[in-house]
Amino acid sequence: MTDQTPLITAYDWVPDFAQGHVRDLRVRWALEEAGRPYEVDLVPQGSQRAAANVARQPFGQIPTLRDAAGCLFESGAIVWRIAERSEALLPTDPGLRDKAFCWLFAALNTVEPPVSMLAVLDIFTRDREAAQRVRPDIVSAIEHRLASLQSALGENDYLVGDFTAADLMMVTVLRNLTSSGLLGGFPALHAYVERAMARPAFQAALEGQLATFRQNATRYAAAE
Amino acid sequence: MTDQTPLITAYDWVPDFAQGHVRDLRVRWALEEAGRPYEVDLVPQGSQRAAANVARQPFGQIPTLRDAAGCLFESGAIVWRIAERSEALLPTDPGLRDKAFCWLFAALNTVEPPVSMLAVLDIFTRDREAAQRVRPDIVSAIEHRLASLQSALGENDYLVGDFTAADLMMVTVLRNLTSSGLLGGFPALHAYVERAMARPAFQAALEGQLATFRQNATRYAAAE
Repeated sequence: MTDQTPLITAYDWVPDFAQGHVRDLRVRWALEEAGRPYEVDLVPQGSQRAAANVARQPFGQIPTLRDAAGCLFESGAIVWRIAERSEALLPTDPGLRDKAFCWLFAALNTVEPPVSMLAVLDIFTRDREAAQRVRPDIVSAIEHRLASLQSALGENDYLVGDFTAADLMMVTVLRNLTSSGLLGGFPALHAYVERAMARPAFQAALEGQLATFRQNATRYAAAE
Repeated sequence: MTDQTPLITAYDWVPDFAQGHVRDLRVRWALEEAGRPYEVDLVPQGSQRAAANVARQPFGQIPTLRDAAGCLFESGAIVWRIAERSEALLPTDPGLRDKAFCWLFAALNTVEPPVSMLAVLDIFTRDREAAQRVRPDIVSAIEHRLASLQSALGENDYLVGDFTAADLMMVTVLRNLTSSGLLGGFPALHAYVERAMARPAFQAALEGQLATFRQNATRYAAAE
């Protein structure tokens, strides 16, 4: 590994429901699209709050990126910085770059919050019965956002001309809805997600994350 | 108004609980810190989904910004673009700018989601009893994030040296917790929020939003 090789952090293993959905996937995908080889520093489950990890990620999370340009945390910041240096992820026109910048924030701060809330209700809330009673309000909020997004996408393949970092981010958010079936009501969005996930760079990124989990599965077998 | 004067969008009125918390506050605050005079195009309540508004904001929301550099939506994107052009909101050192960039995303994508979820449970959920039963899990998630944030802030006044766009964003998120009392358990964060809110630019931004609501209150009196 040279000083120039990007080094990202990822977990060595996560439970089944999270496999293929951990946020290092966003960074892997961006690096794969940009054609930049990278190394992965694995954070063992349970060591998130170790001093070394908190020093590079204040919330003890992954992913982070270290490369010749410095250290970054938060998948949104990392993906954007990668994108700024790759025509595979952003157009050269400043106005279109700004449009992609806005859509990247829309993915993370307008679409993802209700999508995450649904995951919290369906997976992490201890009072299952109460969670199911709250659920319809959140589903309604998500459907409102999806309707606006589908309308904005229109007949286009991607949000801003060709595939950009904004699509990368939006699709990683939308595919978290797969098990809920909510995308079924929005065929153009369903096709949009399928289109992006068919990209070789996405497939390589996904396989990278899953391969690590397979390699470490036996060590965590008791937890499953 | 010249072509160079930034034009933002904001609502002409919102119900009491939202007054002082609508997201144009972030953009007003950034422009006030940067010393850039601006104009406000008011979106009447109920007209969010009108074609003219959706054309500039795909989800029919506010704020947007139009200036000589183009049109932007999403408060995160707008505030960052304003900050890049003002030393009042970002240091000149590239490494420190990157750090602020990461913290801006942390505010919007790590801290805000559980804070917003609490607001959904406390204000918008129709099944009040179920919402209160889900609440402890969300409070716990928020407290974990606040503990990490307070630790990262340490003895410093702000997240990255002097006040930056990252603090602007983080404080607009944290002050939404005021009514919950959760900041009381994190005295350094409480002081951080008070410190930022004491800035003249914040006060001017807040007064700008509230003055509009006062001026239009009688028109919406029946709704209150």
